[in-house]
Amino acid sequence: MSEKLYHEITPEGFGIAIEKDEDLYSEKSPYQVTDVFHSRAFGNVLTLDGLMMVTERDEFFYHEMIVHIPMLTHSNPENILVIGGGDGGTVRELLKHPSVKHIDMVEIDNIVIEASKKFFKSVSCELDNPKVSVLVQDAIEFIEGKENIYDIVLIDSTDPIGPGEGLFNEKFYNNVKRALKKGGIVTPQTEGPFAQSENMRKTYALLRKVFKNVAPYCGPMPTYPGGYWSWGFCSDDVEIPTDYTKIDEKRAQEIAKTCKIYNRELHSAVFAVPNFVKELANG
Amino acid sequence: MSEKLYHEITPEGFGIAIEKDEDLYSEKSPYQVTDVFHSRAFGNVLTLDGLMMVTERDEFFYHEMIVHIPMLTHSNPENILVIGGGDGGTVRELLKHPSVKHIDMVEIDNIVIEASKKFFKSVSCELDNPKVSVLVQDAIEFIEGKENIYDIVLIDSTDPIGPGEGLFNEKFYNNVKRALKKGGIVTPQTEGPFAQSENMRKTYALLRKVFKNVAPYCGPMPTYPGGYWSWGFCSDDVEIPTDYTKIDEKRAQEIAKTCKIYNRELHSAVFAVPNFVKELANG
Repeated sequence: MSEKLYHEITPEGFGIAIEKDEDLYSEKSPYQVTDVFHSRAFGNVLTLDGLMMVTERDEFFYHEMIVHIPMLTHSNPENILVIGGGDGGTVRELLKHPSVKHIDMVEIDNIVIEASKKFFKSVSCELDNPKVSVLVQDAIEFIEGKENIYDIVLIDSTDPIGPGEGLFNEKFYNNVKRALKKGGIVTPQTEGPFAQSENMRKTYALLRKVFKNVAPYCGPMPTYPGGYWSWGFCSDDVEIPTDYTKIDEKRAQEIAKTCKIYNRELHSAVFAVPNFVKELANG
Repeated sequence: MSEKLYHEITPEGFGIAIEKDEDLYSEKSPYQVTDVFHSRAFGNVLTLDGLMMVTERDEFFYHEMIVHIPMLTHSNPENILVIGGGDGGTVRELLKHPSVKHIDMVEIDNIVIEASKKFFKSVSCELDNPKVSVLVQDAIEFIEGKENIYDIVLIDSTDPIGPGEGLFNEKFYNNVKRALKKGGIVTPQTEGPFAQSENMRKTYALLRKVFKNVAPYCGPMPTYPGGYWSWGFCSDDVEIPTDYTKIDEKRAQEIAKTCKIYNRELHSAVFAVPNFVKELANG
């Protein structure tokens, strides 16, 4: 067995294995250990406390999904908050939308931002864009008392253990909701439906307490546990976009041209989830 | 690093890692080596020449998808051919459809059937059903000269290497097409869009030469490379089912009740594939 194999083994007893060519970086912050290695399969790979976070080759699956579904459902998203997302992929996708005036990105760990700027240039490429404020801060404190500011809030967090834990609770979701403008949409990453079904069940039970309209949408994510991921569509006044013909065709086509995944038909298709995912999300 | 870790590492340099509790079975046939082990994450796991084939816990993803999409698109599927599929999961799902009169299952390797009967009882449970003929034979020979016999043909094969290789070529697809009745549908497994994109591209180039209507549909498959899999919808006279409201509601609901994935909305949603999958399949 090669010593140059990276594994993520979840508490459930499985995960991804990747042949590692070279260790590139390792740095400890007060929050977590950030490592970067290079692999033939995925290019550069970043892990936090040994857990898979981002790879150069498959990051588009996650970033296109967390961004374009809420953004193209909103009629005119101008002011955006990204919680977490220090690698910069979410910001890069957001800036494809010409309506965006300003993005606040609140990332607790500067080491993640620095590692991404150095080793993931295709991901972090828009972090210095003048429309973006990068705030190195705990989002739990940042969001307190914010009111009526954002059109879209994306919670691009780690798992609900370690620094990400406080981003999965009712008080936090209520604060996020207060920070939304009328017609606003919140999209959190909501874990893997197959590999982390209990995390997902708990998360949706909380989201349903806080928001009127809540639905999961799902897609592939090769390097995450189970290869299958979910995000939440949460809003008090925007309906779940289950009919793609209501999505602005011109805006959707302009975005789709730049994407490996996103297209207008897929916009509603991702809400047609398997029976077991409905059951997890609807309680 | 534990010696009790199973890995599938694809030629691309990654794959799944599973903590293995116990080796249960290993048997060599003229075609391949069949191994079975037990794992906490997936229950019993069967591999062929070390490649992941079936696990007790995630087999439903694959078997529901290969079966119910073509079966519920056909108005009255009675006579079915399964090529490969020796574990029995495809046959089990087919027999949920009351219209089925007879299934021929043509599996080259009896060892796979025997291992499944012993270690995958929830998968192989319908292999002795009187509606099923289990034929231990090379499907390439079996299909020669068959004409106007089947409503549905499912190609539940291994990868296009080893014994599965001859199931991915134009002559074979032409023979399968000749074996179809009018209104017939062929659904082959067509590999992983992310992990085996070149296999997929070649397969669709061949399918498009043989069938008039060809479209990929995709879904998660946690233990297969990339966690993301594809199947083909191929027919000369049945349209791609991109509108689920045309699927018989009563039949779909009866099947959905028995399924962890399948539901009527999902029937058309699985054809809304990512841009990079369209590009692979349309050439």
